[in-house]
Amino acid sequence: MLPDVQTREPDIPVTLSRVGAKGIKKLVMVKRGRGRPAILISTFDVFVNLNPTRKGINLSRSFEAIDEVIESLTAKPVKWVEDLNVMIVETLLERHDYATKAEAYMVAELILRKKTPVSGYQTQEVVNVLCEASKERNGDKKVFIGVEVPGITACPCAQELVKAKAAERLRAEGFTGEEVSKILSTVPVATHNQRGRAVVKIQITDGFKVPAEQLIDIAKAGMSYEIYEILKREDELAVVEEVHKNPMFVEDSVRLMAKTAVETLKHAPDNITIFFRQENEESIHQHNVMAERVATIGELRAELSD
Amino acid sequence: MLPDVQTREPDIPVTLSRVGAKGIKKLVMVKRGRGRPAILISTFDVFVNLNPTRKGINLSRSFEAIDEVIESLTAKPVKWVEDLNVMIVETLLERHDYATKAEAYMVAELILRKKTPVSGYQTQEVVNVLCEASKERNGDKKVFIGVEVPGITACPCAQELVKAKAAERLRAEGFTGEEVSKILSTVPVATHNQRGRAVVKIQITDGFKVPAEQLIDIAKAGMSYEIYEILKREDELAVVEEVHKNPMFVEDSVRLMAKTAVETLKHAPDNITIFFRQENEESIHQHNVMAERVATIGELRAELSD
Amino acid sequence: MLPDVQTREPDIPVTLSRVGAKGIKKLVMVKRGRGRPAILISTFDVFVNLNPTRKGINLSRSFEAIDEVIESLTAKPVKWVEDLNVMIVETLLERHDYATKAEAYMVAELILRKKTPVSGYQTQEVVNVLCEASKERNGDKKVFIGVEVPGITACPCAQELVKAKAAERLRAEGFTGEEVSKILSTVPVATHNQRGRAVVKIQITDGFKVPAEQLIDIAKAGMSYEIYEILKREDELAVVEEVHKNPMFVEDSVRLMAKTAVETLKHAPDNITIFFRQENEESIHQHNVMAERVATIGELRAELSD
Amino acid sequence: MLPDVQTREPDIPVTLSRVGAKGIKKLVMVKRGRGRPAILISTFDVFVNLNPTRKGINLSRSFEAIDEVIESLTAKPVKWVEDLNVMIVETLLERHDYATKAEAYMVAELILRKKTPVSGYQTQEVVNVLCEASKERNGDKKVFIGVEVPGITACPCAQELVKAKAAERLRAEGFTGEEVSKILSTVPVATHNQRGRAVVKIQITDGFKVPAEQLIDIAKAGMSYEIYEILKREDELAVVEEVHKNPMFVEDSVRLMAKTAVETLKHAPDNITIFFRQENEESIHQHNVMAERVATIGELRAELSD
Repeated sequence: MLPDVQTREPDIPVTLSRVGAKGIKKLVMVKRGRGRPAILISTFDVFVNLNPTRKGINLSRSFEAIDEVIESLTAKPVKWVEDLNVMIVETLLERHDYATKAEAYMVAELILRKKTPVSGYQTQEVVNVLCEASKERNGDKKVFIGVEVPGITACPCAQELVKAKAAERLRAEGFTGEEVSKILSTVPVATHNQRGRAVVKIQITDGFKVPAEQLIDIAKAGMSYEIYEILKREDELAVVEEVHKNPMFVEDSVRLMAKTAVETLKHAPDNITIFFRQENEESIHQHNVMAERVATIGELRAELSD
Repeated sequence: MLPDVQTREPDIPVTLSRVGAKGIKKLVMVKRGRGRPAILISTFDVFVNLNPTRKGINLSRSFEAIDEVIESLTAKPVKWVEDLNVMIVETLLERHDYATKAEAYMVAELILRKKTPVSGYQTQEVVNVLCEASKERNGDKKVFIGVEVPGITACPCAQELVKAKAAERLRAEGFTGEEVSKILSTVPVATHNQRGRAVVKIQITDGFKVPAEQLIDIAKAGMSYEIYEILKREDELAVVEEVHKNPMFVEDSVRLMAKTAVETLKHAPDNITIFFRQENEESIHQHNVMAERVATIGELRAELSD
Repeated sequence: MLPDVQTREPDIPVTLSRVGAKGIKKLVMVKRGRGRPAILISTFDVFVNLNPTRKGINLSRSFEAIDEVIESLTAKPVKWVEDLNVMIVETLLERHDYATKAEAYMVAELILRKKTPVSGYQTQEVVNVLCEASKERNGDKKVFIGVEVPGITACPCAQELVKAKAAERLRAEGFTGEEVSKILSTVPVATHNQRGRAVVKIQITDGFKVPAEQLIDIAKAGMSYEIYEILKREDELAVVEEVHKNPMFVEDSVRLMAKTAVETLKHAPDNITIFFRQENEESIHQHNVMAERVATIGELRAELSD
Repeated sequence: MLPDVQTREPDIPVTLSRVGAKGIKKLVMVKRGRGRPAILISTFDVFVNLNPTRKGINLSRSFEAIDEVIESLTAKPVKWVEDLNVMIVETLLERHDYATKAEAYMVAELILRKKTPVSGYQTQEVVNVLCEASKERNGDKKVFIGVEVPGITACPCAQELVKAKAAERLRAEGFTGEEVSKILSTVPVATHNQRGRAVVKIQITDGFKVPAEQLIDIAKAGMSYEIYEILKREDELAVVEEVHKNPMFVEDSVRLMAKTAVETLKHAPDNITIFFRQENEESIHQHNVMAERVATIGELRAELSD
């Protein structure tokens, strides 16, 4: 008989908030509708809590929980990626009968197809999908699904500075005020622009679900334009022109995502929590700039109805 | 006159939880006692909140806040690293008069000197120092100081499994029960061991301070032994022997840190929050294992006095 | 007509060694035999050289080269992952008619199934697959396929130090020399052990191919044992026992890989280049240790036949 | 007497190209002229080769080599950062008498002060300094010093596309050809711009030295403009205007660095090797673009004198 060290009483009777494993990579399949299933290399972190009377958790049971759920996918892929995490936390609670809470975090790269804006060239796009699920033994459950989407943002402040200076110079060159206005609304005026990353994360309940694709659309609504792995010359022109018609601060990005979420998630209950983050890799600085908002849908509705 | 875009009303009147900059690197000096000042390359993230009536924050004021504080250090280095972050959030609130909350996060590599355990060879050790400070305009302040310390941990479970099997084999070889006990308490028995990282983070108040050095000692108390950049053969022997006398799970590590903290921070008020994390880069797995506890000192005192 | 800036003469007539794109992620399929195709999220870096009479390369052609090759895989997956990179460099040379050399680098995570050593529990393992291909317009081609495989290594030096000290103590306890020998060959003696990563990379020619699976076996031959995402107690015992029977320095690891390669790649021509690296994340240090060898198969054969 | 495992004959008599340690962090001081010494957190990788008759290198001697050199700096800081690496490889050869070659690689973050272009606000800039040194026992030595510098680059192609389209629209609005020319040379025209990183690395000999500061200037010559941690509005306007007057491809960046190097390093012997790399974090793509050139100064001189 092999000794079972984990089940002993610990010398120090201290409760632990979470014990588990980080960075477990698994291949999973998600399938919705009639298309081919999406294959994801998903990285999981899983935890349970631990009371002061047990030395250690039985970690191999945590892996079995994940494996059991993932093996079951071969038979029948999940429709919603968050179902996977919910199944994992439920299996964790079954396997760790001494725990009262289980948590599972997942992140995966999702490769999507999309077409370039003018030439319609077919290309691939990489988006991160996130999922967080926790469940208490009393049945309380908290589940979030999220996406992290790259894009491009242009700075409105620098563009106005450049415009103001250009207007001054054009007037000095003899153009009239009316001509200057016409020129500056015709010529896309320079500013700094950069890679940005938008994060949208929303609470999911038994009665309220949001597909990742809809979150991707909300994330994109908050950036100056989408980015592409391939751009023909006519596409590159269109992207740069659109970006410069649509400059925004990180503050604007978060606010636009919030507005788009409220407008498109009409079926979301007021008490659903939603989180937005925009982070820009500023091209004129070595640091990034970032804005965040966390609120309930109800709070955002109130702010936007004012 | 250059236009001032940030001060305008935004189109979408949504409040922002935080707006700011991430990854600002600065050289800072901390000096305590008579020694040479410690030079730190510190990376700062700073944020303020933003009400729905202003389009953007004035980011350059955030950098001025940091620069002003850091420049003042050339004249007079801070004694406590957390004072730096408190000065930064206070200056942020001054500079951003429209904000009601400011936050500053800092992480820096601290290079310390230490001697190897047997040969006494002088070597350097790298430890991360963390600081988090937030302040509300009404004066409420929350400050944490923390450390992340590397070390080595050995697994008690695998060691007991190996011991049990070795005992069986020794008895089969004809050794008596008493001899087997003597042998297994004399020969350091194999197990898997690995790099671990301990994090200890504690709340600081106007009346309660903890030097980073004391947190480093608490962090080290929770690992099987310290690690060194150079080890002579006699040192390497000593380290491996000590590690195998002192095996521990991540659960044990967090509990030992909690116990050591309660024992050594006798002057800490009950309502102080403290956080512990142990993460081990398991040598037998591709994933890491981790345990955490967050509690007040009072809660830990209660658990440990039972 | 949109202007074509890249085709112009540059102001500064300097030749460029390589121009291209880094970090292009694509989903690809590799299929050998009757099993399901392996799905890889592959990251590509692609380059061509540039003569001094042209301002810039036409980057979109590089993406088209990759896309064209990858789209063709939907119809008919490649059998050998290196064929993909060869097809890419050949398409790059076609599309960039001004270039005389094209290069393609690929890295992908491959998720494999394997069973734990005793309980036979089915689990997944993550291995990196690398491919490098370059081709000159005159037809010269250089192709490498490689793998990076995790494992565990135990230090032979510390184990001997611990054994020598334990022998001394056992003799002091009254055990005879013969008993001490028996004890130390029966009890797995402690040492430090850690995660290691082995890299094997080998040149591929039109007449000489090696499947990635064989390289994975060579890589594993140079570590103390394999690692697993899940280990039942009986498995954990077996892994730790095997690791401690088989301690090795990074130097030993590289030499063992070299010997295994020579023994198993009997069909490899003498002029094939092969590269080995072992890097260990030392559990007793903050730094890693590493050994490397690059040689032709012929050179290794000569060294090993001495 | 402790056993000395490393000095034994290995079972497998294979030569090793390099054996050593990676990621050793040390605090070092470099001092030139009368200013305060620069404090660097330097990360070293050090290696020696190993013949087939010795099982392992004595790693602790490698650390002693570094420590000995670094301790000597407390007494007298080095003037040139590459002297440090040369001292290390020389000490490595002394300590590892069985090795015929030693290598040392160093990278460090250097924090420099600089002023913003218009307001003259004092700010800090982070630049990476690299050093590579190798020495053979026969005295042959190869030393490189390098820098990695961030900056901003704007795309000339997109700018010309936008200009061409804007010209078309302006003419449709009734502006004459002459007016259109005037307008497009007065208004900074939009394009995509992004963070770039330039690397310059040059061979150093006993008779030829280059200060890191000069390499930083060469690196900056190849980007559209410098970037800053803080920018007042008048600075931001100036940076964006300058960037858009000076658009460049990665190809242009490398060529400009090559030209600047040839012009400013007039004392460099023809046989000195120099390396340039420009990598741009494209704001319109998820991937980066990159160009490189490696050549002797003599080769570049020949190409540029044509």
